[in-house]
Amino acid sequence: MTTTESSPTSDTMTELRRRLGQVSDLAAAEALMSWEQETSMPDEAARVRGLQLSTLAGLTHAMFTDQQTGKLLETVEPANETDGAIVRVARRDYDRATRLPTEFVEAQTQAQNEAHHAWLAARKASDFATFAPHLERMMELARREADLRGYDEHPYDALLDNYEPGMRAGTVGTIFADLRDRTLPLIRRIAAAGDAADYSVLTRPFPAEAQKAFAWKIAGEAFGLEGSFARQDESAHPFMTNFSRSDLRITTRVEPYWPACLFGTWHETGHAMYERGVSGRWERTPVSGGASLGVHESQSRLFENLLARSLPFWNRYFSQLAEAAPEVTAGLDAAGLYRAVNRVNPSMIRVEADEVTYNFHIMLRFELELALLEGKLKVADLPEAWNAKMQDYLGLTPPDDAQGVLQDVHWSAGLIGYFPTYALGNLLSVQLLEAAQADAKIAGGSQNAEYGPLLSWLTENVHQYGRSLTPTQITEQATGRPLSADPYVAYLHRKYGEIYGLEGSRR
Amino acid sequence: MTTTESSPTSDTMTELRRRLGQVSDLAAAEALMSWEQETSMPDEAARVRGLQLSTLAGLTHAMFTDQQTGKLLETVEPANETDGAIVRVARRDYDRATRLPTEFVEAQTQAQNEAHHAWLAARKASDFATFAPHLERMMELARREADLRGYDEHPYDALLDNYEPGMRAGTVGTIFADLRDRTLPLIRRIAAAGDAADYSVLTRPFPAEAQKAFAWKIAGEAFGLEGSFARQDESAHPFMTNFSRSDLRITTRVEPYWPACLFGTWHETGHAMYERGVSGRWERTPVSGGASLGVHESQSRLFENLLARSLPFWNRYFSQLAEAAPEVTAGLDAAGLYRAVNRVNPSMIRVEADEVTYNFHIMLRFELELALLEGKLKVADLPEAWNAKMQDYLGLTPPDDAQGVLQDVHWSAGLIGYFPTYALGNLLSVQLLEAAQADAKIAGGSQNAEYGPLLSWLTENVHQYGRSLTPTQITEQATGRPLSADPYVAYLHRKYGEIYGLEGSRR
Repeated sequence: MTTTESSPTSDTMTELRRRLGQVSDLAAAEALMSWEQETSMPDEAARVRGLQLSTLAGLTHAMFTDQQTGKLLETVEPANETDGAIVRVARRDYDRATRLPTEFVEAQTQAQNEAHHAWLAARKASDFATFAPHLERMMELARREADLRGYDEHPYDALLDNYEPGMRAGTVGTIFADLRDRTLPLIRRIAAAGDAADYSVLTRPFPAEAQKAFAWKIAGEAFGLEGSFARQDESAHPFMTNFSRSDLRITTRVEPYWPACLFGTWHETGHAMYERGVSGRWERTPVSGGASLGVHESQSRLFENLLARSLPFWNRYFSQLAEAAPEVTAGLDAAGLYRAVNRVNPSMIRVEADEVTYNFHIMLRFELELALLEGKLKVADLPEAWNAKMQDYLGLTPPDDAQGVLQDVHWSAGLIGYFPTYALGNLLSVQLLEAAQADAKIAGGSQNAEYGPLLSWLTENVHQYGRSLTPTQITEQATGRPLSADPYVAYLHRKYGEIYGLEGSRR
Repeated sequence: MTTTESSPTSDTMTELRRRLGQVSDLAAAEALMSWEQETSMPDEAARVRGLQLSTLAGLTHAMFTDQQTGKLLETVEPANETDGAIVRVARRDYDRATRLPTEFVEAQTQAQNEAHHAWLAARKASDFATFAPHLERMMELARREADLRGYDEHPYDALLDNYEPGMRAGTVGTIFADLRDRTLPLIRRIAAAGDAADYSVLTRPFPAEAQKAFAWKIAGEAFGLEGSFARQDESAHPFMTNFSRSDLRITTRVEPYWPACLFGTWHETGHAMYERGVSGRWERTPVSGGASLGVHESQSRLFENLLARSLPFWNRYFSQLAEAAPEVTAGLDAAGLYRAVNRVNPSMIRVEADEVTYNFHIMLRFELELALLEGKLKVADLPEAWNAKMQDYLGLTPPDDAQGVLQDVHWSAGLIGYFPTYALGNLLSVQLLEAAQADAKIAGGSQNAEYGPLLSWLTENVHQYGRSLTPTQITEQATGRPLSADPYVAYLHRKYGEIYGLEGSRR
């Protein structure tokens, strides 16, 4: 492979790109059908839509894993860097997609469907026992998948690699241990400090349409998400999806607890601006999209927490909030609002957790997944192990399994090795922001909630590469060092030490 | 082929149905992407969406016309009536789809793209000369397509068959001549009678959201279109599309001339309720969908004109209109409204035409298409021929070609043989309604704007069959005779004779 960008593209490369373009188009159609199902589809359409989605998924997979794709990938000689990255990523995807026999994938899909239905019923009845055999099966399949995919150190690595290419369970374990040891004392000190703040502001009346409109307006003004290439819709569970870098969709949910809509929108905005920033040269190729779930989450968390839960942000946007929701802001100022949306409150439920306690929900799940996969923990003993760790980390015992071990959908969907990416994203968000703020202009911008320079830095150092660099490459190239818990731990101590008036919290 | 419904389905049939199901799912994905493009897609997404749509269209065509489909269709032995109809319709579609060589289809597609762009510019500049060479090319391709498709009597038949299976140019010509001769005198008499009605009511203030909400509400109450299986959205040009019989979409457009939104919505509702009524046994097969464009149009026109422009309709819904738009109805009653929405007004523009003059716009186009195809009329002479006929039929001369020969998109899209279906639909709408109203309960229902019994009749006699019967079979089975201009002509004389106070207009 030469690196001359101007070399003529071979016929094989042209044919490969045509084929990958078609695969990308089919995947986009499936994504659009899914998005539409969640946002606007009439109820009765669900059954046939399920069949349509299944056909599209099957055809996309069949076209990509076709021997013809394999032959092209084997013989192609990319003539420039762009094509080189496309071939590299496509080869990796092809290898991964064809390594699992069709029979295995079908068995896995069926078991997941059954497990998902069992989980819905089990959570409703808070009855872990009826879900247990399905979780056993999920773990068996996960072990077998790890064997089929292959790994050097630990079977968990093969699963983690589905979501965080190149990451190892050993690395995650080391980083998490450090994070745990240095954050637990902070939680204890915050608990000891007491909390006299008034959080009733967070459920003051804020009309649904006004919530959505304010969240969307600020997503544009502060973070650059515009209606010319993006849409906001409502769905039961917020998500971001996209069908090209100029076709981004975020969804939101409106609740009496209005921060769910606002911060949820800005979270999805972070995901969307990542996809927006991916270079156009990866259009309709497997290189488009984010480098990993963790890197994606770093962007959503950066926007949601590091920016939108900062004091400069509310100094700038408080007056607009007051205009949009006068009942919410009555008697309040920017500092008061900042204080209210930064409550540290250990709770049972992961998705409701604050910046300080969130990662403990992840560490707990990671440790339990590892023990289950290794066979050191029996599925039958899982609820007890869950509750014990919850007590250790957050001082709480779930009143029932619905609010404990059964709360998340992931395991019922066979997503083993997925959870760590949430915490890795949190850690990376601060590491990236601090690297960016080494530039005085970006640091100054953040102090005035002027995020243009920061967004340019993120596009240049993270977004543009799509999947052409690994998460590790992006992290080291952008921040000058491997992923570490240091920046996040320091950030927590700095921010919450000040909020809770803790002495010597800076470390 | 046996006709025992309970016979076991052969493996070949199972494989054929699986394949046809996948083709149907791909087509549904393409339709959804098109719908979304017109209703909600961000502007910048257009370029890539075009590529995605093109890929889906190509894959759908490739999968259906694959030799494997041909082999299955050749060897399958359907074991029951349902499968028999599926095989019959699929064989017809396959034969038609494979009869045109790929090179021809590609040349046609490219010429259509070029003609469409030329037409957009020509219409804007009202400059027929720049469009003329493209129309020449469209006619050449149409002649060649007719030869490739094959025909018994007239090349036009092969084109007409694309939209109205089994219909012949000779039959259309005979019906149209009768229609023309018996409607022209009515137009003359209406013109002579004068018109003192006040039509300013049609542009009185009616807020956009209220227009859409009222149109949608009545689509449900009067015609049975419900949010559980349908949606209403806005688009530049109103249309109906669907992705299954439980996934119907209608679009509307809001204008100061508010009848455009109301009657447009009810027009699309007619199309939607046709698709809704197609039997579930044709789901995900080529038998789903309407029998032809003409039969489809008969349903939209029946709802839009025969029902929603009737006095009983407004007797029933006037009070709701008054509630939704008090400024519109001020000083008006149901009879006054009925009078205002039934203005006969010869005009240059087809899409704005009333029930009496509309068909003349179609007859004019049909006659010109035929003359062009036969080579009796040169493209260069078309504007003159257009204007002469417009003068003959409606006593008008277009001030420019933009309001004359260049007004419609169809010819620029290669749609030759399409126009007649609009008029055939008009004729069939009355023929069907009268057949239904032979049942006293249905007739009585119509007098009270209670359309439940009528809808049941239409479902039973038209909708349920999908494409399993031809338009001719449906017409003769449902009305007891072939399509004729008689019912429509009598309807016009009856209705407009009364509105315009013409003596002895009943004929």
